Formats: sequence, structure tokens, C-alpha cells
Amino acid sequence: MALSLQLDRQSSVPLARQIQIHIERLIREKYLAPGVKLPATRELALALGVNRTTVALAYEELVAGGQARAHVGQGTFVAAPAAGESRPAPPTPARIPLDWSRLFSRSAHMAGSRADRRAAVPAGARPLISFAEGTPDSGMFPTDAFRRVLNQVVKSEGTALLQYPPGGDGYPSLRTYLATYLLRFGVEAREDDILVVNGSQQGFDLIARTFIDPGDVVAMEQPTYPRAIDVFRSAGAQIVPVPWDREGPSADALEQVLMRHRPKLFYCQPTAHNPTGLTMTPEAARRVLDVVARHHVPVVEDGFDGSLYYGERRPFPLRALDRDGLVLYIGTFSKVLFPGLRLGWLVAPPPVVERLRAAKQLADLGTSPLIQAAVHRFCERRLLDRHVARIGREYDRRRSTLLEALGRHMPEGVSWTEPRGGFSLLVTLPAGCDATGLLPRALRRGVGFTPGARFFVDGSGDRTARLSFSSVPVKRIEDGVKRLAEALADWRRSGGPRPAPERLEALVV
Amino acid sequence: MALSLQLDRQSSVPLARQIQIHIERLIREKYLAPGVKLPATRELALALGVNRTTVALAYEELVAGGQARAHVGQGTFVAAPAAGESRPAPPTPARIPLDWSRLFSRSAHMAGSRADRRAAVPAGARPLISFAEGTPDSGMFPTDAFRRVLNQVVKSEGTALLQYPPGGDGYPSLRTYLATYLLRFGVEAREDDILVVNGSQQGFDLIARTFIDPGDVVAMEQPTYPRAIDVFRSAGAQIVPVPWDREGPSADALEQVLMRHRPKLFYCQPTAHNPTGLTMTPEAARRVLDVVARHHVPVVEDGFDGSLYYGERRPFPLRALDRDGLVLYIGTFSKVLFPGLRLGWLVAPPPVVERLRAAKQLADLGTSPLIQAAVHRFCERRLLDRHVARIGREYDRRRSTLLEALGRHMPEGVSWTEPRGGFSLLVTLPAGCDATGLLPRALRRGVGFTPGARFFVDGSGDRTARLSFSSVPVKRIEDGVKRLAEALADWRRSGGPRPAPERLEALVV
Repeated sequence: MALSLQLDRQSSVPLARQIQIHIERLIREKYLAPGVKLPATRELALALGVNRTTVALAYEELVAGGQARAHVGQGTFVAAPAAGESRPAPPTPARIPLDWSRLFSRSAHMAGSRADRRAAVPAGARPLISFAEGTPDSGMFPTDAFRRVLNQVVKSEGTALLQYPPGGDGYPSLRTYLATYLLRFGVEAREDDILVVNGSQQGFDLIARTFIDPGDVVAMEQPTYPRAIDVFRSAGAQIVPVPWDREGPSADALEQVLMRHRPKLFYCQPTAHNPTGLTMTPEAARRVLDVVARHHVPVVEDGFDGSLYYGERRPFPLRALDRDGLVLYIGTFSKVLFPGLRLGWLVAPPPVVERLRAAKQLADLGTSPLIQAAVHRFCERRLLDRHVARIGREYDRRRSTLLEALGRHMPEGVSWTEPRGGFSLLVTLPAGCDATGLLPRALRRGVGFTPGARFFVDGSGDRTARLSFSSVPVKRIEDGVKRLAEALADWRRSGGPRPAPERLEALVV
Repeated sequence: MALSLQLDRQSSVPLARQIQIHIERLIREKYLAPGVKLPATRELALALGVNRTTVALAYEELVAGGQARAHVGQGTFVAAPAAGESRPAPPTPARIPLDWSRLFSRSAHMAGSRADRRAAVPAGARPLISFAEGTPDSGMFPTDAFRRVLNQVVKSEGTALLQYPPGGDGYPSLRTYLATYLLRFGVEAREDDILVVNGSQQGFDLIARTFIDPGDVVAMEQPTYPRAIDVFRSAGAQIVPVPWDREGPSADALEQVLMRHRPKLFYCQPTAHNPTGLTMTPEAARRVLDVVARHHVPVVEDGFDGSLYYGERRPFPLRALDRDGLVLYIGTFSKVLFPGLRLGWLVAPPPVVERLRAAKQLADLGTSPLIQAAVHRFCERRLLDRHVARIGREYDRRRSTLLEALGRHMPEGVSWTEPRGGFSLLVTLPAGCDATGLLPRALRRGVGFTPGARFFVDGSGDRTARLSFSSVPVKRIEDGVKRLAEALADWRRSGGPRPAPERLEALVV
């Protein structure tokens, strides 16, 4: 490590003292964290063009003052702050405090600065059983198998993979693999119709950039995935909801919306709906496709991954039934493999792929070829297929266990969806009970969930709660549901005046 | 592999024939690529709910027709198309051809569908010496050392790293490392002031989203990095140039622009300027900072990486000299390490980081924790420092060799910049000679470069050409410059009527 300091050689303050003062400030203001090793005296002396003893003198003063500690033979390290000194110092005041908010774009104002934060679990509560995490269970990750293929691809073609991505569309072999993979789901796509992206989130974002001008309308199924709502909203779109019935988004309601609002796009998740876990029936899918074809409105199909379905037959994505080339399909490896790779893909007709590719290049010059090559090799060796078979069975067990437990323990007036795909279901609470108000009681009882309002476009959904079963081991599910029933009983007993709302959103995915 | 086919059990067409027709179409229309293995008969029979012999019959017909090949004990594979059959079939016609362009956003129209393509090298030309690639030399990549740390981090914490990124800001240890690393350059940033992004390209993009509304003005140094121009332009900004003189962007011109156009931001690359390789002098930097402070205009500083400098003293980034908190700093691992990781960072004041973080979450939920952890370990073990020392010396040699060769071989009327940082320099051709016109002649002589016009905001720069020395081995540089001199002589002889323009842009970085 080296430090770049600006010394004033004209000053009457000795150079050693200047160095000491500078490093003291860096430590006090937390630019140098406790434990960080200071540069070797020789190195810093060279960098600053001063005598080595000058630096040594400065370090001795720092050690004497308790800001640093010298370890013989190892060097000088930033000391931990003494008790009572641990609060960060205010940053150096700027000469002109700039009013940044005046400079932010409309999109930034719409996006806000919201960061999902985990609600604090009350002190003394039981260890949490959380139905709030809509993530794959990392306990089942095939980490070691992936480590091996990653090691192999770096060995065999690492140098090429670590250079700039040669084109914006993605690693060709991965796209070839995906073209064949998608045929399982009845989705016909050539390699050139596929664009690799950083997870489905980037898919939403590139579609929003490519289609949405401020003031445009986007029709969205309701309930739906909140992070998709956020993206379209921050692009300046007005969101109009199309309610789900048992079979899928209502085609009649959709047609009303298309006629009245002339949206640019219709967004839905037909095969593994988040939060309900429902799957559109083929009949409902055909009705939806008929309506959008009549009104010439493209569909953004968030495909999650059709591999995780619970039932006899894999559902057909809309893209497989679409005869009019109106469906833009988004897929992801985040649910069936590793979310931490940030890897997904878009399937779209040629004129759209061309624009999405240009948007992708502007956004980040392309997805890491290394990650793509590793996932390709993992898939090609059928390791993904084996993994999905294994986790599919386990998620199915968790789902069934949750459904049985709900049937056994939920009081009158509570209903829920029966998932056919995905990681979660949606509970509707008794009239008068709202999920945000129930949450603190539930946390005290040691159970977490995601209040459903976030999944509704129009401010409704207060009475709903998403329970994700993907991350809760089978043997804890029933206990979690019992606790939820206890929390509901608490609520009934207290007659409903609700405590201050808390959030347990962590990362809503 | 499985295939999802929709069979019509009411049809008079036998099921085997339906399967055959379907697969024939998938092959003909290139959804199934040559060499792809068809599903095992048992597997497909199960998936379709038909008898295994039905599938076997369909496969026999495909083999008989030449569309597939059976390998005993291995399975049935898609055959390579017979000669004359190799052009792709037209896609299935849509019932309603949708006019997609009518639906694209203004931003998509501004971004266009430009994809940088490599210009064809004329047949019979000498093997190309290309000064067009502004990329680090992958021949010097520390691939194997990186493979080892990658393997170690997956072993030690892979499961956590492969889950969703826990927050949008980045892997905490990497940000802690960066905070200390940046002190070398005099940049003071706390861990919380740093946001990890997917390369500097995503940095530009997040800044553009956060600050730019259509119609806003962005002041940019000229010449400058074209992909930064593209991002601000596609966000709807009007770009106003501020010319570089020998010392940096002219403070007087900047002040005129700030007064006349009131831009939201000023963008520049002070320490390793692309394309010129120049470095702002400390005096010029102070003048620029004074001007922006007086006019309350934030600076977007594209830091490239201050580690790659050619001279006695590492230049100070603007961020290190800024006393007013007006500089947003973008850094990247793409030049000093691996571009294929897509890893960079932003440093900004707290209210700005908060907005940028929200924009990053909307864009992709965060950068892969795995990549960040691997790079952190690589840095922490001082492998980056050792690597940079090594490549810095080599790039310096290439730079000196290029400068000497230009001095020796360029005719009267040609001038060039003397790089102090970065990967390239900018040549100005004799009056009347334009670089786009010169390029085909140069390619015929076996030398490539990037015409400079792309680096100019206002359509000027026709007479300039960027020569990147980063990817050309020392022993080929002089030969490349001789060829360029030959191409100039060709141009002079032909009296200047120029052939149709060609581009050798590949990936302009």
C-alpha cells in the first residue's frame, strides 16, 4: 500500500508532523480502517520524496498517540479506536454545500432512495422461522460441482474469457445451449434471438429503456413481482393493474385496460407466479394471447423458470403458444441455479433483440463471459438437469408440507393459493386484519413473512401475505405455521389496534 | 434434453408422423442446431405421454430423410444440412406483423441499433498489425493466479457468494480494500461512499439515469471516450464540448459553457485520457475545479486507473484535489486487471451514493458477489500490485517504442500527443487527409487504427486517428508505423480522392 499525501514544503510545519497530521485525520475520519497496515516507511518515503527517518518519526508519534500500533517485523497498523471515540467524525465540510437533490433526474426521484432493509426481530423473540426469503435454498447449492467447472473453464479458455466480451449478445455456446434448452418448454428461439443479461432484473430494465417513455402506460397483472413494478415506474410509466383470477390474468379485464389505456406493454408471470405460485391455464393463456393480438400489444413474459413446477405436466409458457411473435420472454438462472451469478436471458423477435442489444452495450458492455462459460459447461454436462430434479422434489415437499400445515392450523377466514410453480403462495387474512400490522406480532412469535401490499399495483392487498417455502426446511414449516396462527390469535385477542408497522422485506425476490 | 411438442390426438395424422414433422421443422428453421442430441426415445415418450415405439418410428423417419443420424449406443443427433440447404429458413410468419419501431422509446431511437463491427480486412492484405484495440493485452493476463484465488473463494465461502447479493452496494471487504487503495491516489473515500458496479460503463449509465432528463445539457471534454458520449446522448442529453489544450480541458472554455448552457454535469478523464493519453496538469486541474465550484456543477471523473502512468509522479485525480465534494469518481478493474470480469466502482458524496445505489438495484440487483470476492482476494494478496508493476513497465516500453517510431517514420505535417497515462495516443494527419478515408488504404498495407471522429462530440476530428499501443508487442510496433507511413504515401500519391469509408472499430474502449 502507498499513500498519496500533499506536503507543503514551504510550510514552517515540519514534514514529519505534516505526515502525522494527515494520517491522524485519515484514521479519525475513517478513511483508514482499524487493522489496515500503513505503508512501509521506505515505500512511503520514496513515494513522498522525503527521508525515511521523516516517515519513521511520524509513525512513532502515531504509535505514541495510540492511533497506530507497531508490530516488530510486521509493520505499523491502524489501531482500534479507544472506547468513547468510536463514532465517525463528520466529513470535511465542503466550501459550498451543493443541493444535490435539485440535480436529480425525474427517474431518480421516482426510484427514490429506497433500500430494502431487514426489520429488527424484537429482543427475546424465538429464533425466526422466515417465510420472507423468496430465494432458492443455498443449503442445496451445487457449489462444489460449480467450482470444478469454473476451474476447468478458466484453465482451458480463461484468457479469452477475461478479455472484453467480443459482442454484446453473450457467449455463443451458452446461447446455443439455451436455444435447445428452451425447446423443452416449447419455446422456439434461435441463438440470435437470445440476449444474455445480468439476471431477469436487467431484462426488465432493458425492456423498460427500449419501450417506455415517461407517461406511457404499462399494464401489469396483479398481484405481481414488485421489482418489475419498480422498474417500469422509475422509467416514468403509469401502471394499470389487470387482476388475476383462478386461471390467470382476466382476459376481459385485460381487454378493458387495453382499450381504455392503450398500454405499450403487458407484463405477467404465467408459469410460476410470484407471489401466488399459480400457473396460467392453457385456456386462459390462449384468451390472453387473443386479446393482445387483437390490440397489437406485446407481452413481457417473466418466465422465472418452468423447470420448477409442481404437478403432472410442465406448463407451457405464453411464448410457446404465441403465434404472432408478440411475446418477449425473460428467463433466469437465479431460481434453478445461483442468484449470485446474476445471469439470465431475453428472447425476442429480431428487431427487438437488436435494440435490446444496443441498450445492453450502453448499460454495461455485456455480461461477464467467464460466468457464462462456466454456466454453459455446467449445463452441458447435465449438472443443471440433475440439480433441478433434486431441488424440484425438495421444493415440492416443502410446498405440500406448507399447504397441509395451513389446512391444519389456520383459523376460519384465512385462505391461500395452491402453488403449481415457483417458491411461494399468497395468504389472504381475515377481514379487518392487515399483514403489515400482523408482522410485528408474528416476529415476536418467531415467524416472518412478506406483507402482500408490495405485490399490488393499486395500493390494495393489505390483507395478503406472501409465504415463501423455498428456504424453510420441511421440519420447521409446521412450527412456523403454528406460530403464524398464534400471531393471528394475538391479533384477535387484542381486538386489532395495530402496533407501528415494521417491515421484513430483506431482499424481496 | 426434452422437447415440448403439442400433439393433436384428434388429428388423422399419426402421432409418430406429427413428431417427425415437428422435429423436421425445428431442424429446418435452425431451432435445433446440427450436432445437437435428440432426447432419448424413452424420455421423449414419457414427456409426451406416447408409446416409446412411436418416438422411435419418428426418429427412424428422420434418419431415413437425412435430417438426423443415429449412433449406436449414443443416441440420435441432428445431422449437418446437405450442401445447398444451409441457408436459414424464414421464421414462421406472424399473423399480424407488428411494427415494433412504432413502440420504441425515444431513448431507444437515440441509442439506435448500432453495434460496433469489425471492418473486413481486404483479401490478400498482410497480416494485420492493429493499433485499433484499446484493450489490455490478454497475453499478459495473470489468468492462472486468478484461477487459484477464484477456486479458493468458492471453496471457502462459495455458497454465500452464490446467493443473492445481500445489499446493493457491493461486497464489503472489496469496498474496504478500495477505500485504502484509493488513498494511494489521494482519493479519500469511506467504504460507504463506494458503490461497486459492472465496469465503468455501468458507472456512466447509473450517473446518467440519476442526473439526466431529456433536454438536459452535459458538458464533455473534447476529444473524449465515445461510449460515455453514447450513454449521455441516449439519456436525452445535449452534449456541449469543452476542448482540451496541452494541459487539460480549457478552464476558460469550460466557464463559457457553464455560463451559456448551464449543464447538469461536466465529464472528463484527467489522468489517462482516451484517446490522447494526456494527463491534466495540477494547475489545469485546480483551474477546472475553481470554475465548477463557482458554478456549482458536479464533475464526472472517469478515472480509468491512475496506476498506469508513464512518468515520475503519479498524477492526482481531480477527486483528490476537490475541496467542495463536487467530483463523482469512476474507477475500473478493466484496464489493470481483467475487462471480462466487468468490475468497477463509483465514489460519490452520501446523498448521491444513495441514489446511485437505488438505480443499481433497479438495473440488476447488484454485481456478482463471487467476482467481487475473487478480485478482493487477488488484491489483498498484493497480486494486483505485482501485476500492475509488471504491465506498467511493458506498456511504458510499447509507448516509448511507438513515440520513437512515429518520430522516425511519420512525414511532415503529422503530429501526435505524448501519452502520460492510458493505452493510446492521438495522431493528427496532414491537412486534407481524413482518417476514415485513410483506413482502407492502411488495412491494405496491413495496419489498423481507430478513426478519431468518434471521439469528438461536434463532428470534428476527421483528421485524427487513435493509435493504441496496449495490445501491440514491442517488436511489431515499428513495422506497424512504417505501414501507416506507406498508407499516407499512398494517399498523397492518389491525390486524396477517398474510397468508400470502412470502419475498424471492433470494440472501441
